[in-house]
Amino acid sequence: MSLAEGVRDGNVRATAKLISLIENSPGEAEPELRALHPYTGNAQIVGITGSPGIGKSTLTDRLAKRFRKEGSRVGIIAVDPNSPFSGGALLGDRVRMQDLATDPGVFIRSMGARGMLGGLARATHNAIRVLDAAGYDAIFVETVGVGQSEVDIVRTADTVVVGLVPGMGDDIQTIKAGILEIADVFVINKADRPDAHRLVIELQMLLGTSSHAEAGWVPPIEQTIASTGEGVGALRTAIAGHWEYLHGSGELEARRRNRYEAELQSVVEDHWRKRFFEYWQPGGHWEQVVEQLLRKEIDPFSAAQQLLAPFLDSNTGG
Amino acid sequence: MSLAEGVRDGNVRATAKLISLIENSPGEAEPELRALHPYTGNAQIVGITGSPGIGKSTLTDRLAKRFRKEGSRVGIIAVDPNSPFSGGALLGDRVRMQDLATDPGVFIRSMGARGMLGGLARATHNAIRVLDAAGYDAIFVETVGVGQSEVDIVRTADTVVVGLVPGMGDDIQTIKAGILEIADVFVINKADRPDAHRLVIELQMLLGTSSHAEAGWVPPIEQTIASTGEGVGALRTAIAGHWEYLHGSGELEARRRNRYEAELQSVVEDHWRKRFFEYWQPGGHWEQVVEQLLRKEIDPFSAAQQLLAPFLDSNTGG
Repeated sequence: MSLAEGVRDGNVRATAKLISLIENSPGEAEPELRALHPYTGNAQIVGITGSPGIGKSTLTDRLAKRFRKEGSRVGIIAVDPNSPFSGGALLGDRVRMQDLATDPGVFIRSMGARGMLGGLARATHNAIRVLDAAGYDAIFVETVGVGQSEVDIVRTADTVVVGLVPGMGDDIQTIKAGILEIADVFVINKADRPDAHRLVIELQMLLGTSSHAEAGWVPPIEQTIASTGEGVGALRTAIAGHWEYLHGSGELEARRRNRYEAELQSVVEDHWRKRFFEYWQPGGHWEQVVEQLLRKEIDPFSAAQQLLAPFLDSNTGG
Repeated sequence: MSLAEGVRDGNVRATAKLISLIENSPGEAEPELRALHPYTGNAQIVGITGSPGIGKSTLTDRLAKRFRKEGSRVGIIAVDPNSPFSGGALLGDRVRMQDLATDPGVFIRSMGARGMLGGLARATHNAIRVLDAAGYDAIFVETVGVGQSEVDIVRTADTVVVGLVPGMGDDIQTIKAGILEIADVFVINKADRPDAHRLVIELQMLLGTSSHAEAGWVPPIEQTIASTGEGVGALRTAIAGHWEYLHGSGELEARRRNRYEAELQSVVEDHWRKRFFEYWQPGGHWEQVVEQLLRKEIDPFSAAQQLLAPFLDSNTGG
């Protein structure tokens, strides 16, 4: 039985193994991903992001439990671009939620960046594809930081939840710096802290002046205390509301179209790049051209033209 | 007279015009850049980076004046990836240093990201190429923030100066997060603030445990008060010391080789990408494939293979 068949069959070990293959030997994973592609597109992909220390993993775990109670099968991918660790089910304080880790309806996976061949965003995207084809109804993608790479990862979700906590001075700055545009739902966690109300007001003001105001969806601002579970039901309802909006408005298809287009472009470029270097690297050709540049015997534009010639022949208008 | 000839001739308007062309019509700028390439490689390129508010532009201006006093001609490129403005000579508080702006031995230019065709890093790199060929002896590239794009820009410099100020709690965190590796010289500005000494100690400890300790160059830690000019002479000496190290150790050639290699790769990919879309976009071919992906009639890997076929014929081992 192929890995793809195992995944479709609900075999957790095959699922885990294919995700490892995606991380370590993306080329070998390709035939399996091809086979799984027709079975994807059913899961709701929920991205959860926000600064470190806001309680993202507790929030994710609480949400996952809610989805479980509704009978959904849940996948959780915790992405940390700065972590050297990858592949384990337990990441940091995830240990806390052992009951989730032992629930057969839940698949938990951490993904780190170090030593991974190919990009983390692409690997995450393909891991989502696997869980989607494996029949998980909801897939949570939790990113650890708020850098550009995390934003790139989380924006591939259908619904992006941005978490904040009161009293972290840089939050509104962070939001202004790009998080605002990708948020579908805001959640203020640790909402029993004194400044919670002020943060709500600040957010509302920001939202009022943003482009969201003209769009069909204004991100709701939910308040939770993840450690006790308070407010998680309302957050779950907000996520459901966004899912309905995505379906009703045609926005789901638009987002998925964009996602497929970005993926296609990235796969095309990777394959082409691989071929290009297979052609030019043997015999040190590539290095020789770099030396010529250094000695000013050629300029980079003429050099590029020469190197591209075999790939741009008469077929392609060259 | 071509723009390239004007640049070589010391014509400031031609220089400014060519940089605008690089920003707005990179394709048209190419022949000029080809012509200028043989005349490059003489300037010392000094990158200056650090969090907002540390006094980078004052520091750059003070340094520029020092270089001027030594008889050097100086180029200053202030890069702000978040700014919609580009092309003007005066950016923000740069107005302060009007004496520099009117000095014919100084060329000042701001570059922003919005509306720029092609990447900002590439445009900056080509603007440096122009100033280098125009005979500026030192070129300062000042970046406004500390994000990944700023790091990408500043790491193309020969000498990277990382600025810090005492009492900004996140500094050491920022340094740990990637700035440490690119710094050739540290400068603690506003060094009359109370915590300056502690910051020096913390930095020394970080440097002691870093890979720098094994390399041939340990970044010196200079202290300045840019507003009064105090310490700027020592900073100038540290930059000179690094320049000597680069020449003596062979590191300059190694850095430039890496830079040319990265540039060549990026030019090759841009040219190829342009050709690829010229081939597939007319008639809506590209969009049709994306629709097929959305309808699961094809998977992204097979789709990529089909789209690449005309570019990978028998010539290239296809």
